[in-house]
Amino acid sequence: MKIIRYSIDENWHYGILRSGGDIERLKRSPLEGLQVAGYIDSLASVRVLSPFYRPRVFGLGYNYRAHSQEVGKNTPTLPVLFMKPSTTVIGHEEGIVYPSDGENIHFEGELTVVIGKETRNVSESDALDHVFGYTCGNDVSDRILQRRESEFGCLLVGKGYDTFAPIGPVVETELDPSNLHLITRVNGEVRQNGNTADLVYGVPALIAYLSKYMTLLPGDHIMTGTPAGVGPIKPGDTIEVEIEGIGVLRNKVITQAGAMP
Amino acid sequence: MKIIRYSIDENWHYGILRSGGDIERLKRSPLEGLQVAGYIDSLASVRVLSPFYRPRVFGLGYNYRAHSQEVGKNTPTLPVLFMKPSTTVIGHEEGIVYPSDGENIHFEGELTVVIGKETRNVSESDALDHVFGYTCGNDVSDRILQRRESEFGCLLVGKGYDTFAPIGPVVETELDPSNLHLITRVNGEVRQNGNTADLVYGVPALIAYLSKYMTLLPGDHIMTGTPAGVGPIKPGDTIEVEIEGIGVLRNKVITQAGAMP
Repeated sequence: MKIIRYSIDENWHYGILRSGGDIERLKRSPLEGLQVAGYIDSLASVRVLSPFYRPRVFGLGYNYRAHSQEVGKNTPTLPVLFMKPSTTVIGHEEGIVYPSDGENIHFEGELTVVIGKETRNVSESDALDHVFGYTCGNDVSDRILQRRESEFGCLLVGKGYDTFAPIGPVVETELDPSNLHLITRVNGEVRQNGNTADLVYGVPALIAYLSKYMTLLPGDHIMTGTPAGVGPIKPGDTIEVEIEGIGVLRNKVITQAGAMP
Repeated sequence: MKIIRYSIDENWHYGILRSGGDIERLKRSPLEGLQVAGYIDSLASVRVLSPFYRPRVFGLGYNYRAHSQEVGKNTPTLPVLFMKPSTTVIGHEEGIVYPSDGENIHFEGELTVVIGKETRNVSESDALDHVFGYTCGNDVSDRILQRRESEFGCLLVGKGYDTFAPIGPVVETELDPSNLHLITRVNGEVRQNGNTADLVYGVPALIAYLSKYMTLLPGDHIMTGTPAGVGPIKPGDTIEVEIEGIGVLRNKVITQAGAMP
């Protein structure tokens, strides 16, 4: 089932997106159950929003061997985790704002997990029961800042600019995350062509690992890391992240909030 | 003015703590204005909670030169930032849960800033107008995990266990953060004795820097880094962080949630 968040007539709603483009409006957050409100909206007449408003976002570094190789890193001995501030999150077709002094900003297409219930100390074998669904994500990164921060063993602003986490367009609730084709295109050209079967730490392992330390909350996002093929973006570029069974997340790179170059 | 969050009779409220121990109950979040509800509670009869529920928490590494020296690090060339998950936050007198396999867990007393309004691209000279107030924080850290993660340029679980961010007991809204005496005691013995005058990046610089990249939100916490004197804790220890003009944040180290050793 595909869950969408959208705005229409100055209000916003959650809904279930049906294959013909009809959206069955939901009464409340899908994290509280899928109760339909009795209205049908049309995908063509709404604005798609990020699936959830300002979620907690956990990110992963070096979680595909081929990507670790391309950036000259060893495959890590533990999940390499950081947080992206909730204010990084934007939806499908919203603009990624290119920093005014940006020099080397990269796209990173990623399978993104949405947690469905409060989760602490879950085993790998039970972990997928705690997932609400899966969506596409783009872990936009400022490589120069990232490198400067990482030299001191931390990472925030290099991954943390407003708009640096496009997420969407929908959350698919029925999906096996272990073998999904992931493609990232820049201006229509394929740049990443990966499969979640190659994740160093797969979805169950990541959920089990995180929940060993902290309580995961409904709505939390885990961006699972990016395959090989990352590269720079510039204002005017269109970035698409497509994941099998979910859909296409499309975002244009703009020069300032709201303005197309 | 000292703002407190507390529970009484199965409900929780914000309030203004007066010097005699009376709490003037507030109608709503103090971030929306200080409207009193017309009830007085007594500090002696309430349970103190963390000043805000599950805030975003930004942390700082190596922000006092003497601390950088004691851990063998160079003074950084930029603010070394990370996030602590909202689930790390506990209040005054709540237990810090010692990990069952913990080996080297440290306290870190820190001045903690609470942001008062949405803030983007603010100058250092205007930054303090965006502060709601100041409180005490303890950036509890698992040094072994922290080191393992930082080798790969990231930091999350080493600072991210549930209960690893005691915050409180109150937020003082009228304070100059540039010259505050900070003391941390373990079982009554002074272990950190610093002053915020020695911050490498002071409060205005940190707010200006963060807001260059991201929108800071009302209620966001910035833990400004720890002075020299950090050291290990163990179950049964009592850690106190005292900051001039704010008060004393006291937490006992326990072996599991709710249980005293």
